[in-house]
Amino acid sequence: MDKNLFAVTPPMGWNSYDYYDTTVDEKAVKANADYMAENLKEFGWEYIVIDIEWYAHEAGSKRDKYQYIPFWGVEMDEYSRLLPDPERFPSSKGGAGFKPIADYIHDKGLKFGIHIMRGIPRQAAAEHGKILGSDMLACDIADPSNICFWNPDMYGVRPRLSGSQAYYDSIMALYAEWGVDFIKVDDICRMDMYSAREEIVMLQKAIQKCGRPIVLSLSPGPAKIEQAWHYEKYANMWRITDDFWDKWELLLNMFERCELWQNHVNPGCWPDCDMLPLGQIGAAFGHEHPTNLTYPEQVTMLTLWSVFRSPMMLGCELTKLDDRTLSLITNADVMRLLSCSCGAEQVMRNKEQAIWKTFDIEEDAVYVAAFNFRDNDSLTVYDENDCTFADEEVTELLDEPCRELWTGREYDSLRSALDDTVEAHGARLFRI
Amino acid sequence: MDKNLFAVTPPMGWNSYDYYDTTVDEKAVKANADYMAENLKEFGWEYIVIDIEWYAHEAGSKRDKYQYIPFWGVEMDEYSRLLPDPERFPSSKGGAGFKPIADYIHDKGLKFGIHIMRGIPRQAAAEHGKILGSDMLACDIADPSNICFWNPDMYGVRPRLSGSQAYYDSIMALYAEWGVDFIKVDDICRMDMYSAREEIVMLQKAIQKCGRPIVLSLSPGPAKIEQAWHYEKYANMWRITDDFWDKWELLLNMFERCELWQNHVNPGCWPDCDMLPLGQIGAAFGHEHPTNLTYPEQVTMLTLWSVFRSPMMLGCELTKLDDRTLSLITNADVMRLLSCSCGAEQVMRNKEQAIWKTFDIEEDAVYVAAFNFRDNDSLTVYDENDCTFADEEVTELLDEPCRELWTGREYDSLRSALDDTVEAHGARLFRI
Amino acid sequence: MDKNLFAVTPPMGWNSYDYYDTTVDEKAVKANADYMAENLKEFGWEYIVIDIEWYAHEAGSKRDKYQYIPFWGVEMDEYSRLLPDPERFPSSKGGAGFKPIADYIHDKGLKFGIHIMRGIPRQAAAEHGKILGSDMLACDIADPSNICFWNPDMYGVRPRLSGSQAYYDSIMALYAEWGVDFIKVDDICRMDMYSAREEIVMLQKAIQKCGRPIVLSLSPGPAKIEQAWHYEKYANMWRITDDFWDKWELLLNMFERCELWQNHVNPGCWPDCDMLPLGQIGAAFGHEHPTNLTYPEQVTMLTLWSVFRSPMMLGCELTKLDDRTLSLITNADVMRLLSCSCGAEQVMRNKEQAIWKTFDIEEDAVYVAAFNFRDNDSLTVYDENDCTFADEEVTELLDEPCRELWTGREYDSLRSALDDTVEAHGARLFRI
Amino acid sequence: MDKNLFAVTPPMGWNSYDYYDTTVDEKAVKANADYMAENLKEFGWEYIVIDIEWYAHEAGSKRDKYQYIPFWGVEMDEYSRLLPDPERFPSSKGGAGFKPIADYIHDKGLKFGIHIMRGIPRQAAAEHGKILGSDMLACDIADPSNICFWNPDMYGVRPRLSGSQAYYDSIMALYAEWGVDFIKVDDICRMDMYSAREEIVMLQKAIQKCGRPIVLSLSPGPAKIEQAWHYEKYANMWRITDDFWDKWELLLNMFERCELWQNHVNPGCWPDCDMLPLGQIGAAFGHEHPTNLTYPEQVTMLTLWSVFRSPMMLGCELTKLDDRTLSLITNADVMRLLSCSCGAEQVMRNKEQAIWKTFDIEEDAVYVAAFNFRDNDSLTVYDENDCTFADEEVTELLDEPCRELWTGREYDSLRSALDDTVEAHGARLFRI
Repeated sequence: MDKNLFAVTPPMGWNSYDYYDTTVDEKAVKANADYMAENLKEFGWEYIVIDIEWYAHEAGSKRDKYQYIPFWGVEMDEYSRLLPDPERFPSSKGGAGFKPIADYIHDKGLKFGIHIMRGIPRQAAAEHGKILGSDMLACDIADPSNICFWNPDMYGVRPRLSGSQAYYDSIMALYAEWGVDFIKVDDICRMDMYSAREEIVMLQKAIQKCGRPIVLSLSPGPAKIEQAWHYEKYANMWRITDDFWDKWELLLNMFERCELWQNHVNPGCWPDCDMLPLGQIGAAFGHEHPTNLTYPEQVTMLTLWSVFRSPMMLGCELTKLDDRTLSLITNADVMRLLSCSCGAEQVMRNKEQAIWKTFDIEEDAVYVAAFNFRDNDSLTVYDENDCTFADEEVTELLDEPCRELWTGREYDSLRSALDDTVEAHGARLFRI
Repeated sequence: MDKNLFAVTPPMGWNSYDYYDTTVDEKAVKANADYMAENLKEFGWEYIVIDIEWYAHEAGSKRDKYQYIPFWGVEMDEYSRLLPDPERFPSSKGGAGFKPIADYIHDKGLKFGIHIMRGIPRQAAAEHGKILGSDMLACDIADPSNICFWNPDMYGVRPRLSGSQAYYDSIMALYAEWGVDFIKVDDICRMDMYSAREEIVMLQKAIQKCGRPIVLSLSPGPAKIEQAWHYEKYANMWRITDDFWDKWELLLNMFERCELWQNHVNPGCWPDCDMLPLGQIGAAFGHEHPTNLTYPEQVTMLTLWSVFRSPMMLGCELTKLDDRTLSLITNADVMRLLSCSCGAEQVMRNKEQAIWKTFDIEEDAVYVAAFNFRDNDSLTVYDENDCTFADEEVTELLDEPCRELWTGREYDSLRSALDDTVEAHGARLFRI
Repeated sequence: MDKNLFAVTPPMGWNSYDYYDTTVDEKAVKANADYMAENLKEFGWEYIVIDIEWYAHEAGSKRDKYQYIPFWGVEMDEYSRLLPDPERFPSSKGGAGFKPIADYIHDKGLKFGIHIMRGIPRQAAAEHGKILGSDMLACDIADPSNICFWNPDMYGVRPRLSGSQAYYDSIMALYAEWGVDFIKVDDICRMDMYSAREEIVMLQKAIQKCGRPIVLSLSPGPAKIEQAWHYEKYANMWRITDDFWDKWELLLNMFERCELWQNHVNPGCWPDCDMLPLGQIGAAFGHEHPTNLTYPEQVTMLTLWSVFRSPMMLGCELTKLDDRTLSLITNADVMRLLSCSCGAEQVMRNKEQAIWKTFDIEEDAVYVAAFNFRDNDSLTVYDENDCTFADEEVTELLDEPCRELWTGREYDSLRSALDDTVEAHGARLFRI
Repeated sequence: MDKNLFAVTPPMGWNSYDYYDTTVDEKAVKANADYMAENLKEFGWEYIVIDIEWYAHEAGSKRDKYQYIPFWGVEMDEYSRLLPDPERFPSSKGGAGFKPIADYIHDKGLKFGIHIMRGIPRQAAAEHGKILGSDMLACDIADPSNICFWNPDMYGVRPRLSGSQAYYDSIMALYAEWGVDFIKVDDICRMDMYSAREEIVMLQKAIQKCGRPIVLSLSPGPAKIEQAWHYEKYANMWRITDDFWDKWELLLNMFERCELWQNHVNPGCWPDCDMLPLGQIGAAFGHEHPTNLTYPEQVTMLTLWSVFRSPMMLGCELTKLDDRTLSLITNADVMRLLSCSCGAEQVMRNKEQAIWKTFDIEEDAVYVAAFNFRDNDSLTVYDENDCTFADEEVTELLDEPCRELWTGREYDSLRSALDDTVEAHGARLFRI
């Protein structure tokens, strides 16, 4: 199987984390799947992803002290493999695992994803648990110094032991059996130390062996640009940023990251700007709230993600989506860029503004996006004479007529379009 | 002009530095051009490049104390532009510059290149020199804190001043007039600080304005991988290493660099492994000697450069080439890879060995290169079962017959070929 | 001579920089000397220091573009030694140098200091100038890559050449002749690279040879704590911070630096917190203004400098001092700490507050200083039970009566004193 | 209690690690104590220290795979406190702990030390163990991300919880009960991250509370010079190096570390160069061998440790000491420096040699040590005219007569002594 065919365009979907944190349950998953099938599917949205600690008992019950309760119980089979917490996922009982939920989602024409932490449960290591298809025990392959610094559930595995690959093979076989289409693997993308680099290889080998084209997504970022070729060879998506939330500073910072990765966006290979904190979020974090991003900032976010072609995962509770947000994520002209554009390039960026351009691969069109970083409404000025600013390919387009895709406004020329006012922290996306 | 068309395959040629240091003169240049035209041209070798300090008076005369004599005289026109030292380049007198030498080289069907240092002469700044096409003076655009740390000739220029672009335009116009085909710009590639990044843009703008397709080569390295897109947009070659010399440690180290840059090799965009210290080198450094690389190490170097498709510049005095070295650089089967292969990828690398593969774009062939890093003759063992080692695309080829391109030996299968002994620090290049 | 005897207590005085930048002249120097002799001397203030570019022609005349005009003229004798600019220092004409000014200052019972940049003038190197007492020329000892990054006047010297020591000996002999008591050497304290470390040794050797006990002060910081022993062996003061100005963030940051250096304060060895930006400052920078520090912040600054025993140099124009500022710097009870305390130690510091204590060496007294870092008036709470907070030696004092030195207020016990409100960013200094 | 009085001179003794690794047992401890009492005590040697994993079951039994067996059993009381492994320390059974061994050692006039790892056992956290004197449980105070990277036994504790101090109080009370005089705390000195810094404070508070003057020694290094004041306030010794073994490169490197810390050596505050790998070592590491240091290197080591006044802990099996080694460590003239010298200072150091000097505080003597770093026997040349070399205080002594303390040789003058040949990697220690 060619892993680049698992995700020929950037994955689009919903992820439980921004709203549910560790408390996501069966009911929430189904409700969001229902909503997506009915309202978003036709615009390309298709993945339903269950995020962190679906296996943890009483997850979220000590939220004042811990996000992840240390030294607490997890649901596990006799082969050291984590299973859904039966309290939150009743359909998983009796060995069914996530199969019933996967079936439910597939029946709606959607795809199903889960989150896992890199490694093997600490509890399995302490209890000297077995590994399917190997004589080794969990305590043999677990490396006690190979931990995640923000989650206490797992130990990384020792990369050159046969039991380690057997363990990854065994969990991937289980996920394939369940019908998983997408795994988001955490504590692996930064590859700061330990075996994360090798575990990426083991994961892709396990996917190849399981026979199901499971999309491999790596978190958290920032990914290392000097390892770009490694991600490109073994994974489908990799986070180029630490967790992204609804703060302007983080959004502004994403422009630097997209500049860095602009020449690394290809079918099956998607640098990932992280979830979209739109709509209603934060509930299980103790402060449910509508996104703190202003409307122009939301436009900026969606414009950048679309032009750059980042995967797009909605972080909100879908059933609480307001009309204005809904209209943004169902703008077909913009969403089109994820599947039908390529060759995106940053034309210029300074402290006040940025300009990107990209191309339509099906129709003979160019897109130019202009971003206003200032704290006030202002002109986006394109200076044809500034040598560190001007780009011949944009200069040539200045006399062409164009349409702005968020407002629908038509312009006689790109020059006049670029001379129009943009809101503070806002953006314009022109099609020429 | 599309700068990617200036060098659609990796440039191949000769450079004066490794043998002549700062002392290169007209006679040496012509002798090497004569030799190349007669013996090497048909194998793809075509550039003749004059390296550092062709403008410096008495260059090399205090070699016991300085490589570059500080606070000494340079040849300069009234517009702060450096000219060839008339002592060493008599044909340049009377305002002819390098035109006579360029003509000589072009007449032989070869191409002509020169080296320059980033910036404007310190002497011009001290003397408040003029700039062609600008009211500003050298002292206005020179930045006194923007220096090269190993050469005392120049100051970097202030990037946002019109006089700075005018200065670069003026020198490039002069070089176009002379007939320069290639410039190697020094003290610019690492972009550690200062204006190097902007000066790269100014140089390419000046090339576009001068109307001549001059190849832009950047030194010294290591180039920064996080700026790959910047090099790719504005330059043709960029050094991915500091100066490379005839030492095994440096050659071994190049494998790490090629791993890093393997996905950045494209027409018009050539990560550069630096000059080939083959044959007779080091004369003006005070220790003329045949290369310290063993014959197997030379094979390793040429195999890596060829598979990776690095530009190749011979550092030796060509007229002193021995037969064995000559046979290496005129192996047409190997040299073919520079123009006719693509998609090179490192299959594996550890402390003992490395394997690369690449593809022929004209014929239906695959190349597999095996390198032995050990200090003794040994087998290159390809382990199909090691998950951090095996590559499906190589495994599929194991039963195919193949030919080794340095020895001409034929093998029944790649498996048996990979099982053969390789010399200490040596390499094999198989065509399948 | 034992250099530790040159400054047995931290030097106190006035420095021209914060008000005059590069434009200080003879008249200003004398006016400030007059004021100090009359109003401040009795409280320990005694040094009058002329800061940067007293040798530069037209210094400050292009202030919109440059702080230091590059490639411009400097006053220099035949031995490459800088002399006072005769336009600004008329008494220096005819070879008198700074002697007349030094005499004027000495006559008032004060001491005289000057600022110099590390190294030899770039102009001397370009002109191949001579060096007194050596056959070498300026171009022999100047190192072209050894520059200051913010000032274009000098090149550092090559450390192992006899001409380099001769040069330093020659300038120090000249300063001794003039009657200089204090030199502030710039571009030398951070010792980031080059020869700064060796030039410190050469400077102290030159001082020893000149026979005059000239205090050696090193700038700019931050000094490297891992070289503490080197500063302690060869210098009298070294800046532990980059330039300090009238901003709360910089003042807050100084607490971290004082923590770092607290065990390195000794007679003749003074970690230096930089000039006091009190009163009227900034004139030649184009924005004359009263200090931006609030009154409580000024109290915090003077309390920290006094307890830590930093050298104290007033940056303001003394003749424009207002009464409130004057009362601060003439509080004899506080100023006493510079000469009569020792053993200062940070008891605790967190984001909200800090506590220091020190001892009086002549009288049986302890000082406790409490600082409020919060942005509002608040209590300084000393928690006897917090293990990361409490200090036995302070806990023992809690029942002792005490007096606050800025307000003069008396308290029954240190416990009640520490429970009192402190203004936002303010401080209390208790004597027990 | 003033912790500086716990170790007014640098501790001298024996440590089990270099020979026994994790396998030290009761018999070995007693045998070494017997030997010390009889042969070394009179020269200042007095501590017997049991190093790592005295609490671990089957320690050392899987030495081919692990130094420290992960996820294995440890001996622990009901309050999460580690106890001696009864298999190896039979006298500890029935709740006696290390008291019988401590008594045995004290009866011989020696002192008793143990090693501990920072934090609370992982096993206690997993089992939700109790803490003496607190309602909190081990799982409340253990921080799952706060681990040691080379030993899997413990979790660091959360610094601001009352249960954390209670835990440290409880173990220190137990050690005081046993009669422990010295604890070497590991995984704490580098303070790279986590709570190590706060745990140092908690340890000293626990010592103060336990009422016994237990020397606090911190490992492993290198300690951070910027935290010198923190070590000085709370500990008695801190390692300035990572583990030191019998390799010349490590010994050479120690000169850099001693330079760095030379002004931080004071009563109760001892920068620590680590154990002395003399005699017979390495047994439980699987390669028992005599030290790889040559005799001159051993002299260099002991000279540096003595002049610098590092604590000295013998790493070898004492009962196997050969005569030559014994004579080194019983040279009373040299050992005297640990208790009777002060003010040691590095006079110079380059790639070829180093010179230190120090003073005797009881007798009017100066010591000068000369070290030869070259790989051949050579002269140690003191150049009175090299400004980066010469030290006035040494120059003054050149005409004084002196005696070399290792050879007993007498010299007419220090000048002639310094002119004598020193063996490759050897040293001379002159008393003047």
